[in-house]
Amino acid sequence: MGKGALALLINGGSENWSSARWKARFDAVCPDRRVVLLPDGALDPAEVHYAAVWKPKPGELAAFKNLRVIFNLGAGVDALMADRSLPDVPLVRVAVSDLTERMTEYVVLHVLMHHRQELYLRESQRVKRWAPDYQWAASAITVGVMGLGTLGAASAQALRALGFRVVGWSRSEKRIDGIACYHSADGLDAFLRETNILVCLLPLTPDTRHVLNRDAFAKLNRESPLGAPVIINAGRGGLQNEADILRALDDGTLGAASLDVFETEPLPEASPFWSHPKVVLTPHNAADTDADEISKYVAQQIARFEAGGALENLVDRKRGY
Amino acid sequence: MGKGALALLINGGSENWSSARWKARFDAVCPDRRVVLLPDGALDPAEVHYAAVWKPKPGELAAFKNLRVIFNLGAGVDALMADRSLPDVPLVRVAVSDLTERMTEYVVLHVLMHHRQELYLRESQRVKRWAPDYQWAASAITVGVMGLGTLGAASAQALRALGFRVVGWSRSEKRIDGIACYHSADGLDAFLRETNILVCLLPLTPDTRHVLNRDAFAKLNRESPLGAPVIINAGRGGLQNEADILRALDDGTLGAASLDVFETEPLPEASPFWSHPKVVLTPHNAADTDADEISKYVAQQIARFEAGGALENLVDRKRGY
Repeated sequence: MGKGALALLINGGSENWSSARWKARFDAVCPDRRVVLLPDGALDPAEVHYAAVWKPKPGELAAFKNLRVIFNLGAGVDALMADRSLPDVPLVRVAVSDLTERMTEYVVLHVLMHHRQELYLRESQRVKRWAPDYQWAASAITVGVMGLGTLGAASAQALRALGFRVVGWSRSEKRIDGIACYHSADGLDAFLRETNILVCLLPLTPDTRHVLNRDAFAKLNRESPLGAPVIINAGRGGLQNEADILRALDDGTLGAASLDVFETEPLPEASPFWSHPKVVLTPHNAADTDADEISKYVAQQIARFEAGGALENLVDRKRGY
Repeated sequence: MGKGALALLINGGSENWSSARWKARFDAVCPDRRVVLLPDGALDPAEVHYAAVWKPKPGELAAFKNLRVIFNLGAGVDALMADRSLPDVPLVRVAVSDLTERMTEYVVLHVLMHHRQELYLRESQRVKRWAPDYQWAASAITVGVMGLGTLGAASAQALRALGFRVVGWSRSEKRIDGIACYHSADGLDAFLRETNILVCLLPLTPDTRHVLNRDAFAKLNRESPLGAPVIINAGRGGLQNEADILRALDDGTLGAASLDVFETEPLPEASPFWSHPKVVLTPHNAADTDADEISKYVAQQIARFEAGGALENLVDRKRGY
């Protein structure tokens, strides 16, 4: 053997995401390597060269002095970034095509639901009312995508292929065929003033916390046949000011919202989002990635790294994603 | 003037689809031609060279002996085909890109809703249950599209771009990139045995009446993570045996259905479809086409025809579509 161990640190998650399942997967894709589950009282921390983590808590990785790489088993690294005791080694986040495809499905589904008046049509079915309302074309709607990384760019292009006008916003300048891209704080207002349906796929950083707030909602474009604008958040709960969303839905600043993420998850039963007639709620499952794909991705990156190759999808610690 | 008149025959439809609206639209796009609304007691039928019709009743066009072309203001010509007294002149049906785009939106929306367990997720929201279920990838699902004309081919390609496996079936042989196409009665069983989500966009003809029946449902593929198969009908109500659909939903042969069309429309209040928990019902609005686009299309075809050019999207009367 002789190879450094791979330590798995898995907090929470469904049955499919359990520590035992992850260990079985990594044993299968790293047959020559010792795979250990944390916490492990018998383990010598010095033996651990790699860590693969899901929702780590601050301090849980501090003891591993010989770590070479930390792999985050999802796309969002906000939990890792909050850990000031994190060893100063390269951080890699998951970016498998499966994740991109699933997020694109979620975004396309929820944009189409609002565009095609699903809330109205389900209520019509409930009260047995045959009353088709005027339906506009996709080309009458501008979807604004915040966050133009792998997920945002793929979603934007899928929406454009369906006939929507699409604009994008990101922190740094991006170019995507057929999509007007705004960037930086200076470009945000112009982006919002064009947007009828706002899709948020930003990473959560100190800069983006509560970017979905009342000021932003008030700037969204109300001149489309949709009327009041719609927001869709499939990034992180911390991106949204939840009190602002509720007020904006109730006073008509927003027409509807699809929310996959929340400031507290699981969403408490007392949350008014559950029964709000203008909210389409999903339990943080927009992009449940195939765990087998993720473990293969980590194993391939370790093999490439040990052969002297470069790591992919490295997190920029200063930027925070 | 000197040009033959264009007669409009509009039965039913919403306010936006009213006779008066259609007359105003055609007056705008055919400024040099007399546009008349039927019935018109003062009209000499011999002056009418063109007719544009919506849901005509048998016999309503029989008196117009100098008709040169009949334009159907929708894609489905089953109402016209049922008229044995119809003058024997070329029939043109609407095939504007706007119609294709809207049908593609409907098909993508409803396939994604079933694929991503929207019925389960809406019920979860209603009972305030945070319980993400296992979500499979689009590549685990085969969507079977029946009818590979303009609408079916566009829908099939949009689904493929989202990662679904797509197979197709049509009366005559078709080839579409990346999509296994079956044809004729001989190919139907093989098509059904692969299909997890069946999308029906066939024209209604004597051959296709009740093609969505219990025998067909029993042949659909149950081996995907979806479990029981799903049907989506956005063609015509006459394509479906409604008693068979209800029995199949209730005994588990089908898992769910999206229905935009019904044997009787508007759907009677007594229909069990309204309150069926496995039915997603829409009021025949899958592809509400922009009426301005349709009137421009008809005006362009008349101008081309009078200049000696060929008519597009001619109906084959023997085939029935």
